[in-house]
Order: sequence, then C-alpha cells, then structure tokens
Amino acid sequence: MTTAFTDTAPEAKAQPRDHDGWLVLAREVAAELAEDAAERDRAGRPPFEEIEYLRTAGLLTLLIPAERGGGGATWRTAYQVTREIAAADGGIGQLLGYHYLLSWNLHFFGSPQLQERVERQAAAARWLWGGAFNPRDPDLTLTPRPTGGFELNGTKTFATGARVGDRLAVGATRADTGEPLVVIANPLHPGVTRPDDWDNIGQRLSASGSVSFAAVPVAAEDVIGSLENPSPWVTLVTPAIQLVFVQFYLGIAEGALASARDYTRTTTRPWLLSGVERAVDDPYVLATYGELVARLRAARALADQAIEEIEPALHGPGREDLTEERRGELAVLVATAKVAATEASLTVASRIFEVTGARSTRAALALDRFWRNARTHTLHDPVAYKQREVGAHFLTGEFPPFTLYT
Amino acid sequence: MTTAFTDTAPEAKAQPRDHDGWLVLAREVAAELAEDAAERDRAGRPPFEEIEYLRTAGLLTLLIPAERGGGGATWRTAYQVTREIAAADGGIGQLLGYHYLLSWNLHFFGSPQLQERVERQAAAARWLWGGAFNPRDPDLTLTPRPTGGFELNGTKTFATGARVGDRLAVGATRADTGEPLVVIANPLHPGVTRPDDWDNIGQRLSASGSVSFAAVPVAAEDVIGSLENPSPWVTLVTPAIQLVFVQFYLGIAEGALASARDYTRTTTRPWLLSGVERAVDDPYVLATYGELVARLRAARALADQAIEEIEPALHGPGREDLTEERRGELAVLVATAKVAATEASLTVASRIFEVTGARSTRAALALDRFWRNARTHTLHDPVAYKQREVGAHFLTGEFPPFTLYT
Amino acid sequence: MTTAFTDTAPEAKAQPRDHDGWLVLAREVAAELAEDAAERDRAGRPPFEEIEYLRTAGLLTLLIPAERGGGGATWRTAYQVTREIAAADGGIGQLLGYHYLLSWNLHFFGSPQLQERVERQAAAARWLWGGAFNPRDPDLTLTPRPTGGFELNGTKTFATGARVGDRLAVGATRADTGEPLVVIANPLHPGVTRPDDWDNIGQRLSASGSVSFAAVPVAAEDVIGSLENPSPWVTLVTPAIQLVFVQFYLGIAEGALASARDYTRTTTRPWLLSGVERAVDDPYVLATYGELVARLRAARALADQAIEEIEPALHGPGREDLTEERRGELAVLVATAKVAATEASLTVASRIFEVTGARSTRAALALDRFWRNARTHTLHDPVAYKQREVGAHFLTGEFPPFTLYT
Amino acid sequence: MTTAFTDTAPEAKAQPRDHDGWLVLAREVAAELAEDAAERDRAGRPPFEEIEYLRTAGLLTLLIPAERGGGGATWRTAYQVTREIAAADGGIGQLLGYHYLLSWNLHFFGSPQLQERVERQAAAARWLWGGAFNPRDPDLTLTPRPTGGFELNGTKTFATGARVGDRLAVGATRADTGEPLVVIANPLHPGVTRPDDWDNIGQRLSASGSVSFAAVPVAAEDVIGSLENPSPWVTLVTPAIQLVFVQFYLGIAEGALASARDYTRTTTRPWLLSGVERAVDDPYVLATYGELVARLRAARALADQAIEEIEPALHGPGREDLTEERRGELAVLVATAKVAATEASLTVASRIFEVTGARSTRAALALDRFWRNARTHTLHDPVAYKQREVGAHFLTGEFPPFTLYT
Repeated sequence: MTTAFTDTAPEAKAQPRDHDGWLVLAREVAAELAEDAAERDRAGRPPFEEIEYLRTAGLLTLLIPAERGGGGATWRTAYQVTREIAAADGGIGQLLGYHYLLSWNLHFFGSPQLQERVERQAAAARWLWGGAFNPRDPDLTLTPRPTGGFELNGTKTFATGARVGDRLAVGATRADTGEPLVVIANPLHPGVTRPDDWDNIGQRLSASGSVSFAAVPVAAEDVIGSLENPSPWVTLVTPAIQLVFVQFYLGIAEGALASARDYTRTTTRPWLLSGVERAVDDPYVLATYGELVARLRAARALADQAIEEIEPALHGPGREDLTEERRGELAVLVATAKVAATEASLTVASRIFEVTGARSTRAALALDRFWRNARTHTLHDPVAYKQREVGAHFLTGEFPPFTLYT
Repeated sequence: MTTAFTDTAPEAKAQPRDHDGWLVLAREVAAELAEDAAERDRAGRPPFEEIEYLRTAGLLTLLIPAERGGGGATWRTAYQVTREIAAADGGIGQLLGYHYLLSWNLHFFGSPQLQERVERQAAAARWLWGGAFNPRDPDLTLTPRPTGGFELNGTKTFATGARVGDRLAVGATRADTGEPLVVIANPLHPGVTRPDDWDNIGQRLSASGSVSFAAVPVAAEDVIGSLENPSPWVTLVTPAIQLVFVQFYLGIAEGALASARDYTRTTTRPWLLSGVERAVDDPYVLATYGELVARLRAARALADQAIEEIEPALHGPGREDLTEERRGELAVLVATAKVAATEASLTVASRIFEVTGARSTRAALALDRFWRNARTHTLHDPVAYKQREVGAHFLTGEFPPFTLYT
Repeated sequence: MTTAFTDTAPEAKAQPRDHDGWLVLAREVAAELAEDAAERDRAGRPPFEEIEYLRTAGLLTLLIPAERGGGGATWRTAYQVTREIAAADGGIGQLLGYHYLLSWNLHFFGSPQLQERVERQAAAARWLWGGAFNPRDPDLTLTPRPTGGFELNGTKTFATGARVGDRLAVGATRADTGEPLVVIANPLHPGVTRPDDWDNIGQRLSASGSVSFAAVPVAAEDVIGSLENPSPWVTLVTPAIQLVFVQFYLGIAEGALASARDYTRTTTRPWLLSGVERAVDDPYVLATYGELVARLRAARALADQAIEEIEPALHGPGREDLTEERRGELAVLVATAKVAATEASLTVASRIFEVTGARSTRAALALDRFWRNARTHTLHDPVAYKQREVGAHFLTGEFPPFTLYT
Repeated sequence: MTTAFTDTAPEAKAQPRDHDGWLVLAREVAAELAEDAAERDRAGRPPFEEIEYLRTAGLLTLLIPAERGGGGATWRTAYQVTREIAAADGGIGQLLGYHYLLSWNLHFFGSPQLQERVERQAAAARWLWGGAFNPRDPDLTLTPRPTGGFELNGTKTFATGARVGDRLAVGATRADTGEPLVVIANPLHPGVTRPDDWDNIGQRLSASGSVSFAAVPVAAEDVIGSLENPSPWVTLVTPAIQLVFVQFYLGIAEGALASARDYTRTTTRPWLLSGVERAVDDPYVLATYGELVARLRAARALADQAIEEIEPALHGPGREDLTEERRGELAVLVATAKVAATEASLTVASRIFEVTGARSTRAALALDRFWRNARTHTLHDPVAYKQREVGAHFLTGEFPPFTLYT
C-alpha cells in the first residue's frame, strides 16, 4: 500500500458478482495492504486511510442486500474476506470482521423495518461500524430523556473500531429498568470521547482502544433492540463473532507462512553444516514448513466446516426458528474451530523464524508482528475455557450457556 | 460382537440406497465389532469371522456398480465406511480400506472389459481382496509360461489381507522384460503360503503378515495391467491408498475418544483433590477432552476436504484425463491430511488415559490398543518425509514424484 | 536374563563399597534383566524369580546400615539403582523403588529400637517389602485383640509388592480410636489373600494387584507407628515416594531410548527417499534422537537435583527437625521433577518408533512396553494436579498440604 | 533503573568474596535494570549507560584473577551472573555473557605473559569486550605492515558488543599466509566504524550490529594468537560460548515467568466463567504456571550440570591437556542443554500471556519482549542442527567437529 493509496484506489472497481469475485477483490486489497504492513504496524496510527481503502473497494457494504445498495454477499463471503484481509494485516482484518458482526446486530436485535432503514443508510454512506460491548467493563447506562430517547453515559475499553467507526453499535443498560439494549450512537457527537489509546503489542491497527460517552443522546429510533430473553437465534451473536475471530487468526497464520516463504526463497542462506546449496533444499526447513502447513490447513478446514454450517443459520429461511439444540451445536463447532485456530496461529507465527533464520529478525521486516497479532487477540477469552466448553459437550452433551463469550 | 456373530448377522439387511444409509449400516457393524474388540485384539487371530460379518453386511461390495451386483457407492462412502469400522477395530478398518483400494486396481490398471468381468465375479462371490505389493521387499517375479500366462514366485511382507483374502492383487515384475505388472492370484493354489505370521503390537486383526508364491500360475486374463509409464490418473493409486490410511487413523482416534468418554462417564472417580464430585466436572478432564476433540476434529475436517477433492478424480467423467498438476495437488492435499491425522491419532490415543485414570489400565479393557494401532500403521512411511513433501510443495511449488509412497 | 538365572547369579558377588559400585552392580543386574524383558512382559507372571535375583545381588538390603547387615548405602544410591533397574524392566524398577520406600517406614514412623530390630531381621532374611496403602480404597481396620495387638481386616488394591513381598507394610485405621497406624503384616498368614490379579497394560511385573486381610493378627511389636499429627519430617514420606516414581519413569525412558538405538543401528533400513545409505545418517532420525535425548536429559538433571536436595533431609543429622518450609520446598521440587519426568517419559516412549520404523512393531520385540509402562504408572495421580501444585507454589508461595499424594 | 542510575550506583559497593556474593550483587543490579527494561527495549539505544552500571558494580572484571585486579571469580559464577542479568534484560545479559567469553580468548589463544599483561590492563580500566567473529561473513583481513604488526580491514555483522566495547576481540585472516588469528583492536581508532545499525525485534540492547575496519593498525603485541591447529582445549571456545547462550535463554525465561507472576498476582482479573474470585485460584492458571515452571526448571537443571562439568575444564589444573573425547563430551552436553533451553525459553515466553490475560498486551508493559528476545538469539544457529548433533552422538558416539558453531 503506497502512502497515498486512497488516490490510487478509486471507485473504478466494479462490485464483484459472486463469492469468488469477492475473494479476488479481497486478495487485491490484501496485496496492497501487505506492501507496507510492517511500517504501519510500527507506526500504529488509527487506520483511517486503510478504512477508506476498504470503503472504496466496496468491502464495507458487502453484507448488505443488493436491493438496499450493498454488495449482496453472505456471511460465507464475509468470513473469508476477513481471513484474506487479515493475512495482509491482522488488525485491519479484525476491524473488518468486527464491522460485519456489528452490522448484523440489526438482524439479531432489530425489526425488519429498522434493518431496512439502517442498511439503506449504511450502504449509501458506506459506514464502518465500531462497537462498545466489552462485558468485563462496568455497564454503559441509558437514561430515558423526557423528550424521548435516551442519554448514554459511561466508558468501554477494547472497543474495536470505535475510534474510527462512522456509527457505533453499543450495548448499554437502561438505568430505570435494567434492560440490556443495543443502540446506535453517532461518534461525532461532542459527548463521545475516543482517544488514541490503543497501543498494544499486536493488532495495532485494529483501533481497539476505549470510548467514553458523556450525556450522548440516543434517539428512540436508534434503539436496535433488546438483549433480554434472547431467542436461540439471537444468541448466535456469540458464535458468529467467535467465528470472526477464527478467520483472522487463520489469516494471520497464512500471512506469516506466506511472508516466511518469500523470505526463505529469496533471502535465507543455506546453513553452514547443511550440505545443501539453497535453504529451500534443507531437510529441516522443508519438514518444518510441512509441519506448520499441515497444522494450519487442518485448522482452516475445520473453520471452513463451521462457516458452511453457520451460513444457513445466519441467513436461511426460517432462520429465526433456530432450536436451542442447533444453536448449541453451532456454538460448540465454532468453539472447536477456535481452539484449533488459536493453537495453529500461535505455533505458526512463532515458528516461522526457524525457517527464515537469524537475519530475518530485522525490525524493519517486522516478521514478529504475526506472533504479536495472534498473541494479542487470542487472549480475548481464555482458550482453556473454550477447551472446557468443547470437552463438556463431548463428554456430557452439555451445551454452553449463552454469554457474550459462549 | 458375540462369538457366534455370523449367525446373528444374516443376509436380512437390505442394501443401503445412499451414502447416509451406508454410514448407518457401517455404524451398526462397528457397534457389533466394538463389543469384543478388546478380546479379539488380545487373541490376534486371523479375522475370518470378522470378514464374514463385513461380507454378509454387504460392505465388501460397496464400491462395485449396482448393475454389476455391487453396492453402487463411491469412494466418498468407502472412505467414510473405513473410518467408521476403524473406530471399532483399527485392524478391520485397515483390512477393509485396503480391500477397497486393491479392488480399484481394476480401474487403475485394467481395461473396461476386465473391470466388468472381474467386478461381476467379485460382486457375486463377495470377494475380499488381499494384496502383495510392499516395494521395500525384493520383487516378486512373473515368468512367462510356454502355455500362456505366468508363473509367480517370491515373498512379500506387510501383505495386508493376503492371509484372509479371496483373491490377491499382486505387484510383480516380468522376469523376461522387467515390466512391472499387477495381477490377480488365487490364494487357494497350493503354491501360495500365507502363514499366521502377523503378530505385531497393533492393528492385530489386519492380517498384514507375509505371503509367498512358489510357481503359482497366473492366467493371462488375470493380468490386470502394467505399472509402466503410468498416466497421472493411474498414479492416483498412491494418494488414494494414503487417504485410506488417513481414514483409519482418524477412526482409531474417534474410537479412542469414544471409549474414553464411556469410561470417564461411568467409571472414572473424581480426583481426591479436585473438589468436585464427579469426574465429568473436573476442570482438567474437561479441558483435556476439549483439546483432544479440537485436534481430532481439525484433522478430520482436512480429511473430509481431501475426500471431496479426490472423489471426482477417482470417479468423475473424463477422470483419466487428469493432469499432472491436478494429480500433484491431490497428492499434496492427501499428504497434508496424513500429517495432521498421524499427529492427531497418536496424541489422542496416548492422552485419553489422562481422562480415564489409573484403573483404566486394566489389560482386559485394552484401552491401549488405540495407541498401539495408531503407532503401528503410522510407521508405514515416515511422517517426516510426508512433512517434507508438503513443505517442498508449499515452498517451491514442487510436486512429489510418483512412487508407491508419494 | 536366562530362565534359570537364579542359579547363575549366586551369592558370589561381593557387596559394593560405594555409590559408584552399587551403580555398576545395578547395571549388571539390569543387563541381565533386559535380556528377556520382552518375553517376561508378555508372560506377566508374578516376579518371584526376578526378586530372587535382586535379593541375591544384594540390592534389597542396600539401604540398611552395614552394621545391621545391610549394604550401608543411602537414598541417593537407592534412587539411582531404581532408575537403572527400571531401564531394563519398568515393573521391577517400580517394585524395587517401592520396596526401598516401604522399608523406610521404619524410619518415618518407628522408634530407633524398632528400626534396629526390624532392620536386622530384614537384612538377615533379605526381605522384600510389599505394601498396602492405597488411600483411595476403603480403610483397612485394626481391631484390638484382648490378648494384645490387633486383628487386620479389609482389602487394598494397587498394592505394589504385596503379592511377592516377604513382609507387608500396611496402613490401617484403629477401629476403636480411628487412629491411622502403620503396621507390619506377615503375608504367609492364611488370612492374607493375594491373588494374581495384576493384569494391566504396563508395569506388568510390578505385582501391583490386590491384597485382602481376614482376621490377620498383628502383634503389638509389629506396629511401626502412627500417622497422626505427623511432623514435617514424617510427611516427607510422600515426596520420597513421588521421587521414587520419577526414577522409574526416567529409567523407562532411558530403556526406551537405548533399545531404540540398538534397533536403529542394527536393523532399521534407510528410508527409500532419504538419499542416505544407513538409517543412522538420516537427518530426521538424527534430529529426532537429539530432541528426545535433550528432553530426557533435562528431566533427568532436575531429578538429580531433587535427589541431592532430599538426600540430607532423609538421612542427615538433625533430619527430624526438618521445618515445614523445607518440607514444602522439597515437595515442590519433587513435584516439579515429576511433571518433567512424566512428560519426558511418555514422549520418548511413544516417539522412539519414529526412529526404529515399521518393522520394529513386531510383538516379539515389545518395544511398546516402554510406553505401556510409562502410561500405566504416570496415572498414579493426575499430572494436571501436580502442575497445579507447582504453579500454586510459584505463584503464591503456597506449599501443598500433606496427603499421601502431595 | 532510573535514568540517572550511573550516579546512584557509585563504586561504594564492595566486591563480593564468593559465588553467592556475586549472585546477590547480580540480582541487585538486575533488579535495577528490570525497572525500566520495557522502556529501554522500546528505545533500543546503544547501552552505554547500562554498561557503566555493570562496570561500576564490578561485574565486568569478575573473571579476572584478584591478584591482577579483578573479581577473582570463575566461569561458574560468570555463567550464573549472565543468567541473572538476562532475567532483567536479555540484551544486556547477552552483552555481558559475550564479554566474558571474549575476555577468555586471552586464555584460549594467548600466552601466559599476554594473559597477565592484558588482564591487568582490562582490570584497571574495567574494559568491556566487544567482538567481531561472525564466520558467515567474509573474512576480515590482516595485512602485515612493514613496520611490524598488521593492518585490519573488512566488515563483520552480528558483532555483539562492538558498538560499545572498550576493546574488540577480532577474528581475522592473515592476507599473506591465510592463518586465522585472534587480535585486539581499539575501537576508538578512526578507521573503525560502528554504526547504530542493530535494530532487530529482540535483544535490542545487545549492541549486535556491524563493525567495519579500514586500515586499522594492530600492533604485534595485540595479536592474541592463532586459531590454526587448535588443541582440544582451545576448541572449547565453542561450547563455552554456546553455554553462554544457554544462560541468557534461561534468564529470559526466568524473567518472563517472574514478570508474569507479578502481573497475575496484582492485575489479572479472574475469568468470568471461572467461578473463582482471584486469578491466582483459577485451575488453568495454576496448572499452566506449573507446566511452564517444570519445563524451565528441567532445562535449567541441565544447564547447571553443564556448568559444573565445563568449569574444571575451563579452569582446572592441567586444563590444557583436555582430551578430544572429553572436549566432545562437553560439546555434546552443552548442545543438549541448548536444545532444552531453546525450547523452554520460547515456550515460556510465548505462553506467559495465557496466565496474564488480554490486558497484559499493553505495549507499555512490553511483556512480549521476552519472546522477542528468545526468538531473536535462538536463531544464532538452527536448533535442528543442534538436535542432529546430539542425536548423532547418542546414536553412534560421534562427536561434533570443531567449528565456531559446534
């Protein structure tokens, strides 16, 4: 991605017509992003330019029906596009994947009328959604205003996309009734503070810092809906976002392997005692690549299965009649895929150095960013508890309860 | 499986009509086999009764077209049936999977006329195929007889199914021309010696001992074809059998987990210092199950992908026009799946004991047979060289050369 | 070990005079035991002959002071002798290690007078001690007899050595007061039943089946002492036996590696696609050996440290003044060594096959016995709880409470 | 370490009198360095201040005999001091460890007279040694000058300490005879260029960039000696430096665990679904710590054994009569320790995050520096080849040949 990429990526690109077309487009965008990913990782600035690039390419509106002005694609495509973008830049992949999920709050919690209205707006303006949901922080509060609507107050951390989003999807609690609601907030309101406080070791471009609300008005029509007594379908929100995580974990690992391959092929010298003349002929280099590729391909295949299974549940006719059992099965399948992807991404991202060698540790290459990226987000919730969930289901048939983590 | 199971599994069962029906049938057969798998593992007798059981159930003729008297299923079904049977008894799973592949020699090497003639015979008599191909032994020789056909001489080890097969598919070299041929031998000829010499630590019912041929006549019409200058399609024989291996590795691991689960649920006591009252509530038991399940499911998903990819190559129209590149891709995909399945099956089979506990080491339970089974066959060819193959392709795009291992 | 080894190992051998001498002797005994370890593993008979062999060699009385007729060695020697013997036969190593610990009950619980009296007896008759302590079974009971002493009743499982011991050290509870006592029982009393019911997948010669007591008299002088309100020194009994476990885990792994080495050097063929002419030149074979050796050597070094630390605590002057803190440190150090040894022994024992190859799975070689041995006893108590113990101490400084497992 | 630490660490400190005293001192220095290690890692400046601190504390002259003005300690102390310092700052640990080894070139290659002369100078001025030896770069050349001595030309990369050293130990080849010599260069000569070009992902304070020599004079008396036809004792240089590496790998891992512990205890919140109220009570947190501690302690114990073994070889009477066999054994032992330490340090440094949680990824904490540090230097030479070395010796008794890597 050259510094002035917004100029070089104009609206010229026609919207893809099918899944494969979107993947081709995503790979083009990813190739551009990959070019200076190392420098941007170091700078760690809020990713405004990168988002413009996604926006221009049409990736932000991919999930909105064509008749409402969007790309007309489905979650299968959204997931795989997330993976492709994450291969170039894990943070941008996270941002995009969260955006898709946040946009789906309209479906999980909103009425058909609201969905249509907001999706048309979102498509027209090509909004990026940011979020404010972290359940481990104190609740945001919504205080009813005499004139209707609410006033939003409080602070959330780990608010991916809030710093750069055009609209924020926000989880907050009614101060009077205690009802948990999902609402839309306009981040341009002066009561919204979103400092540049995301400075973590990885996923540096994911804009995952904090956001604060001080008497921010929320119109009645911007209340998407309630989290109270959710139907099984609504509770798909958690597996759906967890499967977003899986995509960018896998993307990060694919990016790591691809970068390592380039380096080994072009730069790594054969080891002194290896008896071979090219690093690509070294028996240990070859077997290590094979071991890592196999591990990643297996995790990816499982993620692909999870996508195929969740796709009709998120989109299909009668989707809202999803049974608790089916919800449970999907949650466990996604949890299983997440355990596998977590392990694969960390292993791959740490071990690529074995096949690139000592000189590949130059800071300018930032080959460590893959591990830093994987390491950072795989802590979102402890993998041991995901293992526990998977194990409990295998052992007793028990399904995990609905929480924003399970 | 009760000792007199041949009486209780009569021909009554109708042939399944589709893939799912075959899996249902396979699971029934597997459930029966699982019942006394531990005792049969200990006894280690040639699996004549077990084969009768498979034969009666119709599993041996599954791959033969319906119009020739067979089950009319395809490789997708054959692979998954192999996995199901292996979950109950790894050795029988191996035997059945090899049988399918050996039967496909008619397709790889034979003319359409020969295929039809032999498949009709095989369907009518419900043959089990045994094999004699081990490339690491000295070649078997075929000496032309003045009266036509050949005389077969020599010895092969690791000849899975030879001890119990109704017909043997045999790889041998023409003594006069050096041409490698694949022929059919009748194991009932007095020149065939097939001692009960398979006594290995695992896959004890796979009948994988030696077979010797002393002046065994092979009629001209029993020459299936030649291995010389094989087309890319013909060389699918190696990925096809390697994917058979993957199936029973996965089946063994599934069987291990299922047996462990039964044991943990019914028998394992909560650990003294765990603070829980049931083993199924122990946090470490749960997470360990989850870790193992995730590992196995990932490997299985990759194997499923490989099956979907190889299925049209083995069956589809124009299959014999397979390009070298496509053959190479399939070979690498199968190799990748094999690396993952090898690792998963060994890990699962060794670690189940952590979740069943000290008393589960009773010899009568033979819970160690899963590890012994996985351990034994995963040495067929070194996994390090499969990793190397996968790594070389990833790194340089190189495809493995055709050998009986790659 | 030839079948009639008791004849060929007469009393001729002079007693070693120092630690190194004992190790030389132990290696000679081990070499003899190793010879037919595979056959004896298969037979799984109670190890009467093997014990005679240890007895004749003087290994049973090694820990008894010379002035009482014993070998005059210390625990450092006992631990390392256990390791050497376990390298040849894991079960016999277990039996011998338990014997040493059981004999030390005289020190942990008995008066100096009792120690002297019983040690003299034990030395003169060269007793093997068996045990009956499993805390997970219902308590054995000691009912006071009007004539003095007690009557012993009940059943214990996993009673290592009980089947073959000359005397049994037994933990039992006074029926009247509930006091936990340690007593000596004579297994030849008709009320003692010790069936040949140890038939487990590993440690097959460890004689670890059950023992039952029906009104077995225990003389007052055969009460060693009480487990009530133990001093810190007395509670060393648990780390001391846990460190015995570590020794035979390491021994098993050393035996596995040594057997594999013999096989690779003499029998393994170079892999077809390796490009080398001898298996010992294969790059993957070499690196795999290196990886396994490093893992085992690290675990062994930690075990050696634990031995050096516990040695003065078990023997030194003022040993009975051991503080709780020092006891805690020793317990944690031993637990740490056990975690490392468990992992190393299982990994080594499972992976040796990668460097010996397919033909090394012949049942007659029984190369699987190392894994079966390690697998069986490493379940004595769950390694996850040992990790927890080690982690808790590291994190908070907390010492594990005294139990028969911690 | 406060910014003005050079003022606060005056010469007041008395020199320790024994090994334990040095360790106490090293821990004090380490505690100071640890304070702002995260900031200094980020800044990545040449470590002049840090070196002043080591110098003032007396750590630079530790290995010089007391009678020559040094600390009078031995390698055992030098190794463990390196470990302690590396726990605070991996890069400074590397610098110090290399310094010790570089200073020992006087012993490996120099005459007793030269040793005495230079050690007195070094002690008086408290030199830090930097080096220029990387065998993978083109040779530096020494051209004889008509007036005696040589002129040094060329460039070396990965020249640890060269940027900040008071004197450089340099390996170079005589242009006329091809003889490999070790010489002393004064880095203040204007022909020496040592740019601030060490900017790598880890070991950021190790000053391991390049150094160039343009017609730099080397006096005849600054020729330490020749690398030609080295005696076995001289070739200990490689195991000796490899064991330096082991020390700072272990130190890095110790530092990682200690930092994680502080964080878990003070900051990590209990997981939502854990059912415990403090992170230090979470079963998975505890077991993960235990697993990591056990792995590290095992590697450390092996390193300790290697230190005990190499100590007399480096110092003892008759040290120069070291046999080839003993040199080989020491080389293999060090290689084994290096394999174990490499694996342990990478695993620990990557996995600590599992026990600190999502918020511990804040860049300001720089908890990732441990992994970056371990990752960077463990690529010095490929661990696969060290495994190979260890495996070859185990399998065939073969000793590695002398190179600057083996």
